[in-house]
Amino acid sequence: MPDNVRIALDAMGGDHGPSVVLPAADISLTRHPDIEFQLYGDRAVMDPLLERLPRLKARAEVVHTDVAIRMDDKPSQALRHGRWKSSMWLALDAIKRETACAAVSAGNTGALMAMSRFCLRMLEGIERPAIAAIWPTMRGESVVLDVGASIGADEQHLINLAAMGSAMARVLFDIERPTVGLLNVGVEEIKGLEAVREAGRILREGHFPHFAYHGFVEGDDIGKGTVDVVVTEGFAGNIALKTAEGTARQLATYLRAAMNRTWMSRLGYLLARQAFNTLREKMDPRKANGGVFLGLNGIVIKSHGGADAEGFANAIDIGYDMVRYGLLTKIGESVERDLKANATARVVSGASS
Amino acid sequence: MPDNVRIALDAMGGDHGPSVVLPAADISLTRHPDIEFQLYGDRAVMDPLLERLPRLKARAEVVHTDVAIRMDDKPSQALRHGRWKSSMWLALDAIKRETACAAVSAGNTGALMAMSRFCLRMLEGIERPAIAAIWPTMRGESVVLDVGASIGADEQHLINLAAMGSAMARVLFDIERPTVGLLNVGVEEIKGLEAVREAGRILREGHFPHFAYHGFVEGDDIGKGTVDVVVTEGFAGNIALKTAEGTARQLATYLRAAMNRTWMSRLGYLLARQAFNTLREKMDPRKANGGVFLGLNGIVIKSHGGADAEGFANAIDIGYDMVRYGLLTKIGESVERDLKANATARVVSGASS
Repeated sequence: MPDNVRIALDAMGGDHGPSVVLPAADISLTRHPDIEFQLYGDRAVMDPLLERLPRLKARAEVVHTDVAIRMDDKPSQALRHGRWKSSMWLALDAIKRETACAAVSAGNTGALMAMSRFCLRMLEGIERPAIAAIWPTMRGESVVLDVGASIGADEQHLINLAAMGSAMARVLFDIERPTVGLLNVGVEEIKGLEAVREAGRILREGHFPHFAYHGFVEGDDIGKGTVDVVVTEGFAGNIALKTAEGTARQLATYLRAAMNRTWMSRLGYLLARQAFNTLREKMDPRKANGGVFLGLNGIVIKSHGGADAEGFANAIDIGYDMVRYGLLTKIGESVERDLKANATARVVSGASS
Repeated sequence: MPDNVRIALDAMGGDHGPSVVLPAADISLTRHPDIEFQLYGDRAVMDPLLERLPRLKARAEVVHTDVAIRMDDKPSQALRHGRWKSSMWLALDAIKRETACAAVSAGNTGALMAMSRFCLRMLEGIERPAIAAIWPTMRGESVVLDVGASIGADEQHLINLAAMGSAMARVLFDIERPTVGLLNVGVEEIKGLEAVREAGRILREGHFPHFAYHGFVEGDDIGKGTVDVVVTEGFAGNIALKTAEGTARQLATYLRAAMNRTWMSRLGYLLARQAFNTLREKMDPRKANGGVFLGLNGIVIKSHGGADAEGFANAIDIGYDMVRYGLLTKIGESVERDLKANATARVVSGASS
């Protein structure tokens, strides 16, 4: 096994702060004993918690700061009062100082994205960041991006998303050449946004050694797992993600209500409890917790603000995998080679048109 | 009770044609005995079916045509070979000739939309059509539009969607002043598309007697039923709709698999069967079948191409309600009064900025 994986945690982020983040780190250590943590936050809150988590205490370095980004801070406010000194900033800066390989925060998305861009800068060849979600499907899991880092996308950005998302899929699913689909609408007449059509043409005609372009996919293909990577711009991606979350919650509520209606159904529920537990685990939104910020010089994982310890631990696990299996190297490969191929395709297309 | 409701059916549309459309019409008659049907399609196929449906036969006029639009016809092809003479065209033209008040078709969406625009023309003051879906929510149902008639929207189109969608909600839900939300993303930093922000400002500042503007909503608010009407442009709306359908199917599959796993769970399933039936009914996609085309000089309902008789009957029922409770009049009121209010708001805003 190579070096330990050093992960910086914004201990003050999220709705619950250290009371969730520290137990989460402890859970993650049971799965990945080779993690070394750096905990950024208020020592007065963290120290008593650490006393009860000896395993974590032995693997964690605590760095004190009084400053925390609030969940409702605007990105500009967060930068103004939190740069250089907040727990969020210090966790990101640990990547830059090369004392950590990844940062995990449950702090607010806008602030975390703004600080990440400011602190870490973008990767060469990438102009805009993206947030990638890991989406449970009938076939397993898929990567869906962008789910809300930026709004709108030209064809170049969509192709960058394909390159970055497929690099992430290679890390997560351990497949050589993931399939990539462009999210579009099915109505023949309109055939989608101009940029989506143009990106589709380039992806179809170009040669991309690190992923296989499948074609357009529709909203219901995401849950089917038609492709390993679903590419879309951030507005539609965010709406798709939240709509799916809402639908899952809605159906879970219906199911609970139905099972409670009569004594027969309650008895049936008791007998089938094991099945319901399996189902609950399968539908557990905590398992998919952890949006990956892509396009930055560093690995940043965003946990849901309301995540519990199990959920936050899953976000840490994702960060661990991304470090351990070389996400940034793989993105570098994809962006460099695939985008060169793409540039060639564009020249060819330009010459022939 | 006033006059009968005359509904024109494209009997050849959809994956199954008359074998679904005619039994569907018969089902619908049990609920609404005051419907008079016009059936456009191939007499050789329809006549034997009608012999077995005496109730329908007594309430239907059959109009023969050999020409049917295929499910994979492009809109331009459909117009070229199906104008004036196809079953789809004739059903729409019945509205124009004022022999019917609504048309229902399970034919392909692009062709139906193109023919509807060509045959019926747009309502005054509306430049682009929309497709509205009836979305089951935790609170009941909401209207979501546009789910795919056109891509992209400026602020004026979004406000037209609010006016038309709320007119439809008044018909469907029998409420005076439905609440309207603009679909947006939650990330503070970006706050959504320029047109969505601008439409939000106009809706907030203007006075709209026929609906109450709630503000921005996110993807998970649709299923919660936060508002009666969710307004979005057609790309994001189509993706939201199909993503929700996909998620519902995915969870139903998980549930079936879980209930089949062990003899205990199968026994539990048997005991709770009534509850599962209730749940299945609640999740039944056929109940929400029927997209309403808005913005046209006429009421056109699009059924899913693969709908069965129960599903197509629901699409007919929606058409019936829209006629019976005066959708077009209510749209006229909303568009005229609400958009005047809006124009004033814009002038005021322009003067003060």
